[in-house]
Amino acid sequence: MVHTGDGKGKSTAAFGVALRAWNQGWDVGVFQFVKSAKWRIGEQTVLERLGELHEETGEGGPVSWHKMGAGWSWSRKEGSTDDHAADAAEGWAEVKRAIAEERHDLYVLDEFTYPMEWGWVDVDDVVTTLRERPGRQYVVVTGRRAHPALVEAADLVTEMTKVKHQMDRGQKGQRGIEW
Amino acid sequence: MVHTGDGKGKSTAAFGVALRAWNQGWDVGVFQFVKSAKWRIGEQTVLERLGELHEETGEGGPVSWHKMGAGWSWSRKEGSTDDHAADAAEGWAEVKRAIAEERHDLYVLDEFTYPMEWGWVDVDDVVTTLRERPGRQYVVVTGRRAHPALVEAADLVTEMTKVKHQMDRGQKGQRGIEW
Repeated sequence: MVHTGDGKGKSTAAFGVALRAWNQGWDVGVFQFVKSAKWRIGEQTVLERLGELHEETGEGGPVSWHKMGAGWSWSRKEGSTDDHAADAAEGWAEVKRAIAEERHDLYVLDEFTYPMEWGWVDVDDVVTTLRERPGRQYVVVTGRRAHPALVEAADLVTEMTKVKHQMDRGQKGQRGIEW
Repeated sequence: MVHTGDGKGKSTAAFGVALRAWNQGWDVGVFQFVKSAKWRIGEQTVLERLGELHEETGEGGPVSWHKMGAGWSWSRKEGSTDDHAADAAEGWAEVKRAIAEERHDLYVLDEFTYPMEWGWVDVDDVVTTLRERPGRQYVVVTGRRAHPALVEAADLVTEMTKVKHQMDRGQKGQRGIEW
């Protein structure tokens, strides 16, 4: 699945998919590919809390959240690098390993279109890996300007288009709603 | 906020907004306006579970979920009516009361564009009520073909456009992902 376009809701909708997956008892892995001041704190908090709930009570499924910049959780120490390109390539390499091992049922590759656009990961490698993924694994990729080859390979592509935004009228984003 | 268009993700993104709001400790009210065989079971289960978590531990905020057809929770017995138009009007009347009393911080009016389109609720009444809502209350309306007056009144409008869908190639929707 690909959620692309310039509008809001690409990641939020992917997050919603992840929560439905959790509710089905699926193993959910989130990989956050862009280092940003606006971490998806709300999404992360809720999804990790649901992962804990799974551990405590058996409800839903397990959740793991990996983010760039805080060090991918399986490898780097926090702040050990500022090389985003290397971080992204390393993140993708880990996703590849996870897919090969069928580690998760659902992968959310959040803002993964950007490292693809910027040449930090190889587009052909991504598309081939996703096309040929073994078993029954689902992948959601979010971000603007999804590469045509990714769109071609995807089963479901939704474009979120901004029709109108209060920011255009000079208002700032609202805590709890926009971030 | 309005999430409209023919693509996927309108309700899912609204659900994501609700979860962020929950995480901020906000009071979330979901009003599901269309009676459907495909209830948003996953969303409802997760969000109500989070509401329980709030009651148990104080985490997040309270959640209430009201749906048409099962009888709006505050009034009708299940199966007491098949009059969808009356149900929708009653649902909207309750939302109006809630807004007047500032009962919730966030309202999700799921698939509310349809009763507006079908004349089951008065568009001017809706727009006026939403425009003049007291305090700091947020409202998300989802559904296709949002009425122009609603779009005009909204601060943020996102259109979800279907670029490509596996259903077009004859595959069926997938449990856990699409519903």
